[in-house]
Amino acid sequence: MQGQPAEKEPEQKSKTPLDELSSVLDHDMRQVNARILKSMESDVAIIPRLARYLIAAGGKRIRPLLTLACASIYDASMEKVWPLAAAVEFIHTATLLHDDVVDESAERRGQKAANMIFGNKASVLVGDFLFSKSFQLMVECRSVEILRILSDAAAVIAQGEVKQLTTANNIETPLSAYIDVIEAKTAALFAASCQIGPALTEAGEQQEKAMRTYGMQIGIAFQIVDDMLDYAADPEKWGKDIGDDFREGKMTAPVIFALENADEAEKSFWQRTIGNKIVSDGDFETALELINRHNGLEKSRKLAQSQIKQAKDSLLQVPEHPLRKTLDNLADFVLVRAN
Amino acid sequence: MQGQPAEKEPEQKSKTPLDELSSVLDHDMRQVNARILKSMESDVAIIPRLARYLIAAGGKRIRPLLTLACASIYDASMEKVWPLAAAVEFIHTATLLHDDVVDESAERRGQKAANMIFGNKASVLVGDFLFSKSFQLMVECRSVEILRILSDAAAVIAQGEVKQLTTANNIETPLSAYIDVIEAKTAALFAASCQIGPALTEAGEQQEKAMRTYGMQIGIAFQIVDDMLDYAADPEKWGKDIGDDFREGKMTAPVIFALENADEAEKSFWQRTIGNKIVSDGDFETALELINRHNGLEKSRKLAQSQIKQAKDSLLQVPEHPLRKTLDNLADFVLVRAN
Repeated sequence: MQGQPAEKEPEQKSKTPLDELSSVLDHDMRQVNARILKSMESDVAIIPRLARYLIAAGGKRIRPLLTLACASIYDASMEKVWPLAAAVEFIHTATLLHDDVVDESAERRGQKAANMIFGNKASVLVGDFLFSKSFQLMVECRSVEILRILSDAAAVIAQGEVKQLTTANNIETPLSAYIDVIEAKTAALFAASCQIGPALTEAGEQQEKAMRTYGMQIGIAFQIVDDMLDYAADPEKWGKDIGDDFREGKMTAPVIFALENADEAEKSFWQRTIGNKIVSDGDFETALELINRHNGLEKSRKLAQSQIKQAKDSLLQVPEHPLRKTLDNLADFVLVRAN
Repeated sequence: MQGQPAEKEPEQKSKTPLDELSSVLDHDMRQVNARILKSMESDVAIIPRLARYLIAAGGKRIRPLLTLACASIYDASMEKVWPLAAAVEFIHTATLLHDDVVDESAERRGQKAANMIFGNKASVLVGDFLFSKSFQLMVECRSVEILRILSDAAAVIAQGEVKQLTTANNIETPLSAYIDVIEAKTAALFAASCQIGPALTEAGEQQEKAMRTYGMQIGIAFQIVDDMLDYAADPEKWGKDIGDDFREGKMTAPVIFALENADEAEKSFWQRTIGNKIVSDGDFETALELINRHNGLEKSRKLAQSQIKQAKDSLLQVPEHPLRKTLDNLADFVLVRAN
């Protein structure tokens, strides 16, 4: 029954769609976790130590769950999917490690960021290790097509990360450039995760495209919501300091919308803070006020909502399957965090 | 005539074996360089800019030349080898970029290190970009076996880099741990480069092993010689500051040999400098004197020589071919820098 939904139990109703995926795909996720742990083995002690730290930090495992769910819909041979789901999580984790070095982050998921404990050197090199391990895992499935999809995604992610460097601190960044960045740095891996199932089962180009679009659109929405939370979240709840993006001068949806109709004084404020990174006490509160004045969060939410609509539409082209409904609910759930 | 040696011309006698490879494989190297340039294209301006800077810095291109030469010996279809030779150079370049961030290097190949000009952030992220591009290039050859060889090499390199972090500043590091590190961080990619030819042409396990051993052994020797140069080189000639490894507290062959028979006072000196990184004026001169007293460079050279002997022995199992002689000369040439 790998990858097949279990009997629906009454208490599932209170579960989130992510919980539901985790429970339905429990057997497969155990296999994925076993592969993740095995690939992190090394006689260089700091590698399993840092890896365990990252694993313990948890995270939602949304990418491997998507990989498994979409593969189940197409009745893929799950033994082939397990290493791929692990590979996807490794690409993601490697990216996080390097991101934290680049952003000089102090926290990640409510605990100290790895670079703060193990140092930047170890974070860079262990990131490289995880990244190369992800390719070893991909090779296990022996499909050149899958290797193409995932290596393309990895290249797009890296390019998106570099592009983000160039949009940071530039208050002229248009919404389209922001979307380009998050499509590359976040959504491309969601898209690839969802494409693996139809690609592995040779379900045809149209099916690959449908699943890819679903992944891409929820990925974009997911990142928009994440960027909203930096100006709205309860830090206790989300394990993320609010205001980080502001202090780093990142150009994200709420700020871009606040800038759209900003007057000269407001523009000067954003130029000083986001543009020149000169931030004093009270500036973050002013930023929140300006975002509020221009409905920056509301407009961001609407943008995310329109991506979710596209994701759900795309899903209609996918074969009927109990997990299709869960994926549909998951798309809506991405927005729940934003409310 | 791709990959085939050109007619021997009289002036070739004064050329180094590397020059000879470059000249014989000129047509193929042009194809490789074209692929390298094409893969570095990006609408994110800093990527081609940083990439061009690295390319302009040159380097010997020894890894792609080895890849091409070994593939030529087995009459591989060279169109398949070009992207692989480019991939090998990309893995190497990505590693250099991350190394320089980790080592906080100021110079590389006689010019400012990329991280000094473009910043650590760009170096980390463009390194990731080059690494992912290398996998895209590998996918072009559509051979899962080649992808396995190169992804294994990438994982070993990353592990070696992390291991090097743990041997640095530890004056108890035994010679075997040092060899493990350089085998992983340097020689594994040489070995993989040489293995591609027989693997691609399915020349059999014995041939793959013979070429792999050749690459591994010259790779180890190459790194030992490089580490010797840090205590012996003419900086003008090698474009490398001498004393860098000493100041960073790296445990390399000359120091390990100097420590073998060190008395207590000498051990205290190494503990203070390499171990605790407390270095004052005149310490590097003392280090040179101690290395000289214990024949550290001479012993390092002998160690490299024994690796070269193994490389040359392994080459005897490879099919006769004009390039086999060039590879034999190249093995000897690795040592020339050490004299």
